[in-house]
Amino acid sequence: MTDLDWRAALDFAQTLADAARPIALEHFRKPLAIDIKSDASPVTVADRAIEARLRQLIGERFADHAVYGEEMGQAIGETHTWVIDPIDGTKSFISGMPLFGTLIALAERGTPVIGVIDIPGTGERWVGGPEGATLDGSAARVSGCTRLEDARLYATSPDMFAGSEAQAFERVSRRAAFRRFGGDCYVYGLLASGHCDLVVERDLKPFDYMALIPVIEAAGGRITDWRGDALGFASDGRVVAAATPDLHARCLDELGV
Amino acid sequence: MTDLDWRAALDFAQTLADAARPIALEHFRKPLAIDIKSDASPVTVADRAIEARLRQLIGERFADHAVYGEEMGQAIGETHTWVIDPIDGTKSFISGMPLFGTLIALAERGTPVIGVIDIPGTGERWVGGPEGATLDGSAARVSGCTRLEDARLYATSPDMFAGSEAQAFERVSRRAAFRRFGGDCYVYGLLASGHCDLVVERDLKPFDYMALIPVIEAAGGRITDWRGDALGFASDGRVVAAATPDLHARCLDELGV
Repeated sequence: MTDLDWRAALDFAQTLADAARPIALEHFRKPLAIDIKSDASPVTVADRAIEARLRQLIGERFADHAVYGEEMGQAIGETHTWVIDPIDGTKSFISGMPLFGTLIALAERGTPVIGVIDIPGTGERWVGGPEGATLDGSAARVSGCTRLEDARLYATSPDMFAGSEAQAFERVSRRAAFRRFGGDCYVYGLLASGHCDLVVERDLKPFDYMALIPVIEAAGGRITDWRGDALGFASDGRVVAAATPDLHARCLDELGV
Repeated sequence: MTDLDWRAALDFAQTLADAARPIALEHFRKPLAIDIKSDASPVTVADRAIEARLRQLIGERFADHAVYGEEMGQAIGETHTWVIDPIDGTKSFISGMPLFGTLIALAERGTPVIGVIDIPGTGERWVGGPEGATLDGSAARVSGCTRLEDARLYATSPDMFAGSEAQAFERVSRRAAFRRFGGDCYVYGLLASGHCDLVVERDLKPFDYMALIPVIEAAGGRITDWRGDALGFASDGRVVAAATPDLHARCLDELGV
């Protein structure tokens, strides 16, 4: 970072996660007021309460930073942008699954430099930044998996894919050691910690993937779009995360985009 | 129970779960020795260590009871049979997912009367028996969901289904409020606690479903095979669990078996 103390920003990102967690837990496994947005995804009271609180805290601390959130507007700043998904995995959240997460990223001129994957339901937190990746304060490191045949592969749901993309996902996932569904942002944390090896998804938004990037990269993994290009605000939402560059390359070959 | 103090048996079932939990956690997220069984499912050292320990404890306390376990032999007793899945969700276990479980049931003349769903990774435990169902000691109760269109539906994976069964699962799951994959035994606990409403699966073994039955039924739900018949040792492995009799009936209609 050129004009910002990244260590202070990293601490602040965790302050944001600290503020979000009790709001999420207050509403988890409780009767919810569920609206239906225009895209039919459920939006909970908790989503909006968290984003409003984080926007307030960011505004107080960094009045000149932009905020790109899921629920309350997507602004991209000239230099700094906070990217927020208050509750990633809303379907998990509203069915009692404790693996939903709060995602917080700081992007500098479009590149995410700090990422937090916070899991209120289990109390786990992955953090990634210039000094490395951690899970609950201990170093996180990807596995050494290089072969598709050895890869433990995750995707949130097969229902993400259709047409030629479904065929591409079938080609990759059927060659993996096994494929497993469910998990939302949680599986990217598992990848950063070496417990799974490959995640292939599509139709993600910047608030779904920006926070994952510093975590995966600082843990030694590789995360790009399906063509191998860096993810940014203008990406098409197709995401591949792999434990090693070799596994990543093998996956892109098989996807054949 | 006619010839056994069921309250003592319930306490003992929890003693078994207490014994299993530290063994599971000792091996969770650690490098594992993974064998491949004849059916290609991964079997871990933890699986076998847990089952061996529970068989020892059962033998010491109830020498005349049979043990029907996943790994070390399936005996069915004339009166009492302990049914054990040391680690349900082995793929979750070997990819760091904390929602795997230890399943323990006591069947009397083929009917499960006590069930424990223990989740070492989160510390949660569902217990079901003649006096009711609990999660961590507090009463568990299903939701009041009666309509398929309102049901939050889970299955471990779409890869369970093929042919006409896949079509039946599509019919049901596409009419549900949403369908979600992943979770193994954990989602039956969520159903017992009212957080999801419907689980439809196939290819389950007695050690996968016997422990679920007392939990779901004591919480007010209904769990049978796809024809609506009671589950037992000789069932075909197709399982429907629903929050209410109405939802259960609607699901069976749609499955059309």
